[in-house]
Amino acid sequence: MTMKVYGMVFSPPVQRVLACLHEKELDYEFVQIDMKAGEHKQETFLALNPFGKIPAFQDDDLKLFESRAINNYIAFAHAQKGTPLVFTEPKKMAIVCLGLEVEAQHFDPPASQLIRELLAKPHFLGMATDEAVVNEEEAKLAKVLDVYEARLAEYKYLCGDAFTLADLSHLPTLECLMGTRAKAIIEARAHVHAWAKDILARPAWQKVVAMKNNP
Amino acid sequence: MTMKVYGMVFSPPVQRVLACLHEKELDYEFVQIDMKAGEHKQETFLALNPFGKIPAFQDDDLKLFESRAINNYIAFAHAQKGTPLVFTEPKKMAIVCLGLEVEAQHFDPPASQLIRELLAKPHFLGMATDEAVVNEEEAKLAKVLDVYEARLAEYKYLCGDAFTLADLSHLPTLECLMGTRAKAIIEARAHVHAWAKDILARPAWQKVVAMKNNP
Repeated sequence: MTMKVYGMVFSPPVQRVLACLHEKELDYEFVQIDMKAGEHKQETFLALNPFGKIPAFQDDDLKLFESRAINNYIAFAHAQKGTPLVFTEPKKMAIVCLGLEVEAQHFDPPASQLIRELLAKPHFLGMATDEAVVNEEEAKLAKVLDVYEARLAEYKYLCGDAFTLADLSHLPTLECLMGTRAKAIIEARAHVHAWAKDILARPAWQKVVAMKNNP
Repeated sequence: MTMKVYGMVFSPPVQRVLACLHEKELDYEFVQIDMKAGEHKQETFLALNPFGKIPAFQDDDLKLFESRAINNYIAFAHAQKGTPLVFTEPKKMAIVCLGLEVEAQHFDPPASQLIRELLAKPHFLGMATDEAVVNEEEAKLAKVLDVYEARLAEYKYLCGDAFTLADLSHLPTLECLMGTRAKAIIEARAHVHAWAKDILARPAWQKVVAMKNNP
């Protein structure tokens, strides 16, 4: 049975899973969940994710949710196909795990808040941007990217000289940020900027961008 | 070289790592970081964790931080010792990853906020508990534990019939919550309550509790 991804393509966590599937060159079925109609809060979807959030994922008898857990599964279950993304050697994999935790705990919170303030609120929700929140979150993101800048001055990617799941996990929020004035924080750091340009240009990610632009 | 954990034993993320080391029956050296003296913001510590947060971890040439990344490394690097905690079979490991993500993204935020309001603020920070925050976070935690209750009605542990890294990751915050009035949310759910009692009584965890009580 083909793997199934349930969600809407505008969602960054959904895009994170699609990016992984394309890097691994795997076939999958994309099942649209109509969130406007509240489909994610109905019994059929809640059987896939009891928290009622997209994405959800199915591979035969395996039901998953949480984009980073789904990607970890895909990368290990299909280790031999497409871009490697993970390692079996514990010390090498530890650095990928660390990169993923840093993305989830340090990078994603300010990045997502900035996307909400600068993109979602003015363009989709008809609400005003809260400038105080923008200033606060920009300062947080800048501190995180200072750490990234030092790291990327030493290595081409976050976990060394190969593109891994940790880099991939940043793509959806990084893409959105580059469409806002917060891109200045990225462009102000030479190595972060080069890294962002490099990973955003990957053919697998560009396929996701095409899906996002033609939902 | 013995593995080193850097931190202070009162910190839940530090306790999370100690719990893992004790379950795996591994030797380690605990290096006290004097946070009151600002040691975690000094160069030596920042070389271990550029974000200046505890715990940090070292195993020969490997430097790590973020408790969940450290635990993942310990569990895989020492798969044959002590309690298994993880699996190599991708579908079984996917469920552990999911449990870890749910702990980090859904359980930990309200649990940590409640610990701050009900324990840290009145007992350590000399601040008043914000009842509005308590009500809001209790409601969030209750919803998460409803999902856990359904899961634990089917399986003894979060990922099936064996105790894994996902259960272990809850121990530090669960222990603190049980010392506050928020324990009522746990006790109101029979399967969650039985699970909490079971995992909090584990000998490995009790060793961490003893360290916490005699720092």
